[in-house]
Amino acid sequence: MGMELKKLIAEQAAEIDRLMREDISEFAVNLDPLLVEILDYGLFSGGKRVRPLLAVLSAGLCGRCDPAVYRLAIAFEYLHAATLFHDDVIDRAETRRGRMSINKRYGGVRAILAGDFLHAHAMEIIGRFGGIEALSVFTEATRGMVDGEFRQLRNAGNFDCSEKDYFLVVRGKTALLIGSACEIGSMYGGADPAERKALKIYGINLGCAFQIIDDLLDYQGDQQETGKAVGNDLAEGKMTLPLILAMQRAAPPDRHRLLCILQRADERVQHLDEVTSLIAAYHGFRDARKRAEESISAARAELALFEDRRDLPSFQTLEDLTLYVLSRKK
Amino acid sequence: MGMELKKLIAEQAAEIDRLMREDISEFAVNLDPLLVEILDYGLFSGGKRVRPLLAVLSAGLCGRCDPAVYRLAIAFEYLHAATLFHDDVIDRAETRRGRMSINKRYGGVRAILAGDFLHAHAMEIIGRFGGIEALSVFTEATRGMVDGEFRQLRNAGNFDCSEKDYFLVVRGKTALLIGSACEIGSMYGGADPAERKALKIYGINLGCAFQIIDDLLDYQGDQQETGKAVGNDLAEGKMTLPLILAMQRAAPPDRHRLLCILQRADERVQHLDEVTSLIAAYHGFRDARKRAEESISAARAELALFEDRRDLPSFQTLEDLTLYVLSRKK
Repeated sequence: MGMELKKLIAEQAAEIDRLMREDISEFAVNLDPLLVEILDYGLFSGGKRVRPLLAVLSAGLCGRCDPAVYRLAIAFEYLHAATLFHDDVIDRAETRRGRMSINKRYGGVRAILAGDFLHAHAMEIIGRFGGIEALSVFTEATRGMVDGEFRQLRNAGNFDCSEKDYFLVVRGKTALLIGSACEIGSMYGGADPAERKALKIYGINLGCAFQIIDDLLDYQGDQQETGKAVGNDLAEGKMTLPLILAMQRAAPPDRHRLLCILQRADERVQHLDEVTSLIAAYHGFRDARKRAEESISAARAELALFEDRRDLPSFQTLEDLTLYVLSRKK
Repeated sequence: MGMELKKLIAEQAAEIDRLMREDISEFAVNLDPLLVEILDYGLFSGGKRVRPLLAVLSAGLCGRCDPAVYRLAIAFEYLHAATLFHDDVIDRAETRRGRMSINKRYGGVRAILAGDFLHAHAMEIIGRFGGIEALSVFTEATRGMVDGEFRQLRNAGNFDCSEKDYFLVVRGKTALLIGSACEIGSMYGGADPAERKALKIYGINLGCAFQIIDDLLDYQGDQQETGKAVGNDLAEGKMTLPLILAMQRAAPPDRHRLLCILQRADERVQHLDEVTSLIAAYHGFRDARKRAEESISAARAELALFEDRRDLPSFQTLEDLTLYVLSRKK
């Protein structure tokens, strides 16, 4: 499946990009030129556009694949981008996808504002093309994202944070928006309540797995492939699943050692190799991956409801995406 | 009119506050407690709630004054608060209404996030209680606010900025949201297109006057009354109308002197008295005030359409508010 799915994702991403450019050029003429430049810089940096794709596929699976669904779908990319603009201000990130982050290049002020702009624009699109109920799902996901960020800030100082704390963050920060893309897509496609729920849960589980793999790549990824340095999460003291599992399981001296490393914010990253070894010794990576696989199984189980549509390309792609999430290297 | 209007504003503000508290307590139980604390701190600091009031009055003038209009109206306060949270991060403001700003008290990260939360929440409310067309007006105003901020950033480095540049900022940053409160209120009240347009223009003009007075108070206000130090705008190099007028009119030596002062960012505020004298000498304050009065006249002119409803309390209050804006000292 690998190459075919990648080709499909690339084709769909090109279509999404084309529509975003068209959309932005419609109102750009009335905007401050620097704002337009930032939107352009921030939106078109080679993203895979998985969120809009999920909305399109979910609509298709529920029986509607008119081209207009793309006009709705781009809202998920806009909201996602708005979140990244603000996240990079919050994390003081200097790079994003191998390029300067917006806050680094244009300053935090403009990054905040451009995010606000896309945020409002995304809401309008969802309301206009999806209707009020879709807007409600969308804003619920957005509020959940903020809540997830607050929980993450809380966890950052808590080296004893639990798996449950972690999953609440992941759910809020990543999974709810992906779930809302599937849910709103299904609503647009005319889903009945059971179908709508199934695709929402599919999306939430897919999103959880996606984030766990992301967190694994932060320790084990290849910088050449991911475009990100490894060890960012450790440097920031972010408690992700591999580390949480290791902390829970470590024998007292190892646990003590991990705590000592975590408590010295400035020196954490010097101990990346040691922390990685300890996590591996306590099977933190293996079992985090297992959790991701469980999420993927749960996502696939929801697709059973659509078994009679197995021949639709949208079904096949939604199924393939579950494997793609587990296999991704970047 | 003074005391009666103030009493009415206070009563209405209490009702708006009550409904916001009720609304927030509905979902607070599922949120991170610190997020709830910040929303509480940021929302309930004695604002006059003019924006929701304008929505309520506009709905009433167009024939609908059921209590449910308040559920819609609070969205304008939420969006306004979200903007202030982000503005204070952007301006690195340490105080707001005589108290610590959110970014000062809770950090910029949490101020950005809490703003995002209110932003999404406001959009949902407008969609749910106002419908898709109202949402479209609302998001248009929000995007205009961002555009206004960008233009302000552009003007900040441009000491030759024009009145037109200034009004584009004021329109975006302040007037569009106030205009949208009036317009969306009127739509909720069942306005015909002419009524809707009249109240929108009323609001935009009221908002412009409001901002000009605000900018005058930044030079001429009494810190005891406004709760803000004077001279902030000068310190930040913000080109507001009194200064723009003075710069345009100043004889070459005075103009040169003003430019010298403006160019030394760190020392500007030391020259506040001198700048104030120069602005006064070139009638910058007098004529800025004249512009505010012109905006107010334009706002009042729009009310003529509703002359046959002159006996409605909402008509009277909308008229009184125009005088209130000109007379306010804080």
